[in-house]
Amino acid sequence: MDSNLDALFKPRSVALIGASAKELSIGNVIIKNLLHYQYKGPIYPINPKIDELRGLKVYPSILDVPAEVELAHIVIPPPFVPQEVENCGKKGVKAIIINTAGFKEMGAAGQALEDDFLRRAKKYGIRIFGPNCQGTINSDPEIRAYCDFTFTYPEPGYISIVAQSGGVGAVIMQAFHDMSIGMRMYASNGNGSDVSIPEIISYYGNDEGTRAIVLYVESLDNPEEFMEVAKEVSAKKPILAMTAGRTDKGAEASRSHIGGLAGSISMDLIFKKTGILSFDNQEELCHAAVAFAYQPIPKGRRVGILTNTGGPSVIAIDELVNNGLDIPQLSDHAKEILKESMFESASIHNPLDIAATAGAPQFKSALDTLLKEDQYDSLYLNFVTPPFVDCESVAHEIAEVSKKKLKPVVCNYMTDKENYKPTTAILKEGEVPCFDFAETAAKALSALVRYQDIRSQKKGKTELFSDVDKDSVRKILDGAKQEKREVLNAFEVYSILAAYQIPHAKWELASSSTEAVIKANKIGYPVVIKADAEHIIHKSDVGGVAINIENENEVRKTTEKMHSLLGNDVNFFIQQFLTSGKELIIGAKAEQGVGHIIMFGLGGIFVELLKDVSFSISPISDVEAMKLINEIKAAPLIHGYRGEKGMNKQKIKECIQRISLLVSDFPEIKELDLNPLFAFGDEIWVVDARMIL
Amino acid sequence: MDSNLDALFKPRSVALIGASAKELSIGNVIIKNLLHYQYKGPIYPINPKIDELRGLKVYPSILDVPAEVELAHIVIPPPFVPQEVENCGKKGVKAIIINTAGFKEMGAAGQALEDDFLRRAKKYGIRIFGPNCQGTINSDPEIRAYCDFTFTYPEPGYISIVAQSGGVGAVIMQAFHDMSIGMRMYASNGNGSDVSIPEIISYYGNDEGTRAIVLYVESLDNPEEFMEVAKEVSAKKPILAMTAGRTDKGAEASRSHIGGLAGSISMDLIFKKTGILSFDNQEELCHAAVAFAYQPIPKGRRVGILTNTGGPSVIAIDELVNNGLDIPQLSDHAKEILKESMFESASIHNPLDIAATAGAPQFKSALDTLLKEDQYDSLYLNFVTPPFVDCESVAHEIAEVSKKKLKPVVCNYMTDKENYKPTTAILKEGEVPCFDFAETAAKALSALVRYQDIRSQKKGKTELFSDVDKDSVRKILDGAKQEKREVLNAFEVYSILAAYQIPHAKWELASSSTEAVIKANKIGYPVVIKADAEHIIHKSDVGGVAINIENENEVRKTTEKMHSLLGNDVNFFIQQFLTSGKELIIGAKAEQGVGHIIMFGLGGIFVELLKDVSFSISPISDVEAMKLINEIKAAPLIHGYRGEKGMNKQKIKECIQRISLLVSDFPEIKELDLNPLFAFGDEIWVVDARMIL
Repeated sequence: MDSNLDALFKPRSVALIGASAKELSIGNVIIKNLLHYQYKGPIYPINPKIDELRGLKVYPSILDVPAEVELAHIVIPPPFVPQEVENCGKKGVKAIIINTAGFKEMGAAGQALEDDFLRRAKKYGIRIFGPNCQGTINSDPEIRAYCDFTFTYPEPGYISIVAQSGGVGAVIMQAFHDMSIGMRMYASNGNGSDVSIPEIISYYGNDEGTRAIVLYVESLDNPEEFMEVAKEVSAKKPILAMTAGRTDKGAEASRSHIGGLAGSISMDLIFKKTGILSFDNQEELCHAAVAFAYQPIPKGRRVGILTNTGGPSVIAIDELVNNGLDIPQLSDHAKEILKESMFESASIHNPLDIAATAGAPQFKSALDTLLKEDQYDSLYLNFVTPPFVDCESVAHEIAEVSKKKLKPVVCNYMTDKENYKPTTAILKEGEVPCFDFAETAAKALSALVRYQDIRSQKKGKTELFSDVDKDSVRKILDGAKQEKREVLNAFEVYSILAAYQIPHAKWELASSSTEAVIKANKIGYPVVIKADAEHIIHKSDVGGVAINIENENEVRKTTEKMHSLLGNDVNFFIQQFLTSGKELIIGAKAEQGVGHIIMFGLGGIFVELLKDVSFSISPISDVEAMKLINEIKAAPLIHGYRGEKGMNKQKIKECIQRISLLVSDFPEIKELDLNPLFAFGDEIWVVDARMIL
Repeated sequence: MDSNLDALFKPRSVALIGASAKELSIGNVIIKNLLHYQYKGPIYPINPKIDELRGLKVYPSILDVPAEVELAHIVIPPPFVPQEVENCGKKGVKAIIINTAGFKEMGAAGQALEDDFLRRAKKYGIRIFGPNCQGTINSDPEIRAYCDFTFTYPEPGYISIVAQSGGVGAVIMQAFHDMSIGMRMYASNGNGSDVSIPEIISYYGNDEGTRAIVLYVESLDNPEEFMEVAKEVSAKKPILAMTAGRTDKGAEASRSHIGGLAGSISMDLIFKKTGILSFDNQEELCHAAVAFAYQPIPKGRRVGILTNTGGPSVIAIDELVNNGLDIPQLSDHAKEILKESMFESASIHNPLDIAATAGAPQFKSALDTLLKEDQYDSLYLNFVTPPFVDCESVAHEIAEVSKKKLKPVVCNYMTDKENYKPTTAILKEGEVPCFDFAETAAKALSALVRYQDIRSQKKGKTELFSDVDKDSVRKILDGAKQEKREVLNAFEVYSILAAYQIPHAKWELASSSTEAVIKANKIGYPVVIKADAEHIIHKSDVGGVAINIENENEVRKTTEKMHSLLGNDVNFFIQQFLTSGKELIIGAKAEQGVGHIIMFGLGGIFVELLKDVSFSISPISDVEAMKLINEIKAAPLIHGYRGEKGMNKQKIKECIQRISLLVSDFPEIKELDLNPLFAFGDEIWVVDARMIL
C-alpha cells in the first residue's frame, strides 16, 4: 500500500468549517489547539456569522478563502456536511477531517448521509478522515499540526499512535506525555469511512521519524488489507498493539459504541500472524513503546542487572524470569574487576548489587563491565537516588552507556522527580527509558526481547503437497452446493480427506446387509457402522450408530435392524473401529476476510475442561505447525512423557499443514473438525470428522 | 500483641548521634529531613567536632543534651554503636533507630556487634529499630516526624507502609506521592533485630488514622507471631501485601541481600491464611491502597459503569469480568429515567455511555440513577475531559457521589492534570480514587471486592475427630525416633493411617512365605508384595516389589524369590492390589514456624505435568478443605464431568481434615504423601503413602 496522507499529517493550510466563538465547542477548541501548538501554516476559520476568532480572520465560506486550503475540518451538524464536502471539492481541498458525529453509528439515516458525502468526496478526489473522530496531530517542529480537539500537547518524539477509539488514543498520548516522552504523530479516525487504519499504519511505516507504532483497534473493516500492511510494516519497525472486547461483555460494549463488529477473538491471532506485538494492558504497551523509542533491540534474552538497592532487584528478577529472560552469572574476569572497584558492601553477582552508597565511579565501572561482558544482551538498572550520593554524576554515567546504544538499557528510576529535576533531565537527555517500578521496567525490556524473538523467528515454508487431488474435492463440494447441503455426509468427508492424503481409519460404503458384510470383511474387525441418509442428523439418537461390531453375524443383525428402524433407503458407512489411541483434535474455522483459524489440541478433557488448545491463521507453514504442537501445555505428552514413547510429531505437523492447504484451496469450507484423530505408536488416524460449508 | 511504639512514631524529641556537616551523608540528610518536614519537637544533633548544623546547636554527646531525648538515631560506624546505645540508656532514651549498616548482614563479626548492642538496649529497656535501616515517618500534622533519610515528603493521608526492603518502601511511598495521595506512617526496619514487622503491623492496626496497611516482606523471622498479628489486624482493616523471590533466581537474590531466608513459596499461603490481600505487582498494590483509603467496601460484585467515552469502557469490562465482577443490566425503571435525561447519542445500557458531549446535568442524573439502582454494589467511572464540556461541574457531581460513601466509586480519570488542575483538585477533595488507565481503575475496584470476599468468607470449623488414636501414633513415632530413623516403614505408615481413620487398601505383614500365603488369602487377590527391611531403600530397584499377584502359588514363588534375593531377614508387606481408580494426591510438608503446608490435587499428569494442585496451611477447616478441592482446574472431574459420576467429595474433604489433624497433633512429621489415593465409586483408598520425620 502506498497511501499519500501528507494532506492529513503535513497540511500546508487548515480551514475549520463550523468555527465557533463558544469556548466550550469543538469549533473553538480546534482553533485554540492549532494556535497553542504553534501550527506553522495559515488557519482559516469558516463561519458566516462571525468576523474574527482568537485574532484570526473568519471567512463566511470555504469558497471565500483567498488562498489554497489543503486540509479542512468539518464540525457542523450532519445534514449540512455533504454540501460542505461539495464546497471543499470546488475549493480544491485535498483532505477533510469530519469531526461531527451522527452518521453510520446512528443507523440508516446517518449511513445515507455518510454515503452522500463519500460520493461527493470521491468525485473531487478528496480523502475523508472520520466522521465521528478526533483528527490528526503531527509534532514535527517544522509542522506542528494539531488538527484535533484533544487536550494533550505532546513534545516531539519517535512514537506514532493510531487508535480506533479516541478515548483510548487520548489516554495513550497522555501517558507518553506524563512520562515526559514525546510523540511523533497521532490519528484517531472514528468511523473510518475512507482513510483506513491500514493506510495510516502504512504511512507511519514510511515515516522516517517514527521508530515505533502504537495501535489500538477493536474491529477491522478489511482484515485482509490490514494483514498485508501489518506484515510489511512490522518487518521494518515494531507495531505495538492492543485490542479489547475479549470477554463477551466487553465485546458487547464494543459493538454498541462502534458501527462494526468486534472480532477480538481473532484479533490476537491476526497480531501474531503479522508480527505485531500484542499487549493486553494499555500501560504495559506504553512502557514498551518507550523502550522501543529509545533503545536498540537486544540480540538475545540474557540480562545483566545492576542495582543500588536490594528489594527492587528481587522483584525485577521475578518479572524477568517469568517473561522467559535469562540472568546468567558474571564471568570470573568481571568479578575480579568488580571486586577491586566496588565497596565492601557490594554483592558481586548478577544481580550486581553495588549498594546505596555507590557513587559515579562505582556505577561507571559496573556499567562498563556489564556492557563488555559477552554473556549479556541487555542491561537492567535499578537506580534509587540516595540523598547521600551525587546522583547527577551517576545519571551521567548511565546516560553515557545508554547513548552508546550497544545494548538496550532500561532503568527502574526510583526518585521524587520534583526534587531530582537535574538528575531526571540527564537521564532523559541520554534517552534512558525510566520506569517507576521494577516490574514495569522489566516488562518493557521483555517486550524488546519479544520483538527480537518475532523478528528472528523463521517464517517457515507453506507446503503445497503436489500429491493432493484438488479436482475430486471440487466435484464433491460442487455437488453438495448444488443440493444446497451445508453439512457434508461421511462419504464426502472421508473422500475429501483421502484426496488430501490425510490419514484416516479405513472405511467402505454399503447399501444392503449383504454388501455390508462383504465390506466389513474387507476392512477387518472390529468395525463401526453408521446409518447414512440425508434425513438423519443425529445418528446416535435414533439408533443409527453401532460400535465395536466384531463379526459377520453382528454386521448382518445390526444393518438389518437399522434398515427396519430407519428405512430401507439408508446406506451404511462402515469404518474400522479403533480404540485406545491418544486423542488429538485439529479444527478449522473460516473468518471473514482473514482466512481460516486452525486449532490444535489433545482431545477429551484437555480441550473440553482445560481449554489447552493452540490457534493460528491459515496458511500454516511447517514452522507454524510445529509451534501449534509445541504451544499447548500438554505438549510433553506428545513429545513423550516420563519414559512413555511420544507421538509422531512429523505426521501431526504434516496433517495440520494438509488441513491448512485444504481450507486455503477451498475457502468455502466454513468449519472442519477432525475430532478425534488417534495417535497409535508411530501413526495417526482420523476416526471422526465433520465438515460444514 | 500490644506494642507501644509511640517513641518511634510519635517521638517528643529526636537526637542524631553522628550528625554531619557533609551534605551528602546520612548524618546530615536526617537533620535536613526533620527540618524540611517541620518536625514539631526539638532536634538534637550529636557530634563532638562541630557546634552548629543547619542552624541547630550540636552537642558533643547524647549525655550533654540538657533535656529529655525520646528517640535517637545512630549513624556512626558499627564498632562505636554498642557504646552509644549504652550512653542512650544512661540518658533515658526510649527508642533508637540504628541506620548504620554492617551488622548481621555482613557475617559473624557484625552479628557479634548486633548481639552486643541488643544486650545493652535490653538492660535499659530501649527498643531498637534496625540496624541497616531507613527509619520511620509520621505525617500526622501534630507530629511530622521524618526520622528517615529518604527523599519523598508525603502529605498526610490514610495509608501506612511497612517494608522489609527500604528500596521497595521508598518506591511505594513515592507512588502514593506521585498520585497526590497522602501517607500516614512509614517504617522500614532493615535487619529487624528488635522491633519486628508484626509489631509494626499491630501498631498500625491500633492507629485510628490508618485506614489501610501496605506491607512488603521477603522473609519472616517469626512466622507464628506474624500470622497471629496479621489475622487479628486484617479482620479490622485491610492489609495489602506483596512478597518477592517467587522464582528461584529471585529467591537467590533476596537471600543475598537480606540476612534471612527467603520463604516466598509459603508467603503467599501465609497471606491467604491470615486474610491479607496479596499482590504480585507494586503498582497494583498501590492503586488498590488508594481505593481502600478513600472508599467503602462494596457489599458485592455487581458494578454499574458510567462512561463518557467508548473504548476505555470496553477495556474496563474485560478487566472487571476477568476479575470475576458482574456487570448486570440497568432496570427498566432506570432506563426510562435515563432516556429522558440523556442526549440522543447516549447508549442506555450498562455500561452507560453518555458520550463525550455529556455535561454536569447528564452526569448527575446518571450517577444518581446508578447509585439508587439496587443491582449495583459499586460504581466504575470513565471520565475523559472533553475540551468542549465544563469539566469542573462534572467533577463536582462525581465528588458529591463519592463523598456520600454509599457505594464505592473508582474513576479512570483521563486528562492532562497540568491543564485541568481545578477539575483534578475537585476530584481529590471528594476523595475520588482516580487512575490513568481503565485497567488500573478496574483492578483497584476488584481489590475492594476481593477484600469483601475474604471478610465475608466463612472460616469454617477445624474438626478434632474424637475417633483418632493419638497414643498409638505417639508410640510409633517415638519408636522410630529412638531408632533414629527418619523414613517410616510401611507398617508404621499404615498403622498411623489406621489410627487416624484414613481409608487405605487392606494390608498385612508376614515374615515367611507360608505366613504370606495365609495373609494374602485373608486380604483377597490380587495383592502387591513389598519387601520390608531397613536396609532396602529403593525397593523396586532391587526386585523388592511385585504387583498384581493373583494366587497362592504366585505369592509363594514371589516371597521365596525375595528371600533368596534380599536375605531371609526381610519381611513382607502384603497389600490389596487396587487398579483403575481415579488418582488423587494429598501431601503435607512442615514449614518452620508456620505449621504444615497441605497440598491437594489429582494424580498423574495433573500434578506432574499440569501442576494443577492447591495449597493451604494447617490446621485446615472444613471450609478450607472444600476450597482446596474446588480450587484445582480439574475440579469438574471430581464433581462429575459430562455425565460421569463424580467422586465422594465429603470423604475427600474428611481425609484432608484428618491429615491436617494428624500433622497438627504430630508436628514432627516433616513430610507426608498420600500418592496416590484411589477414588472408586463412592469410596477413596490410600494405596501408597510415605512419611518422613
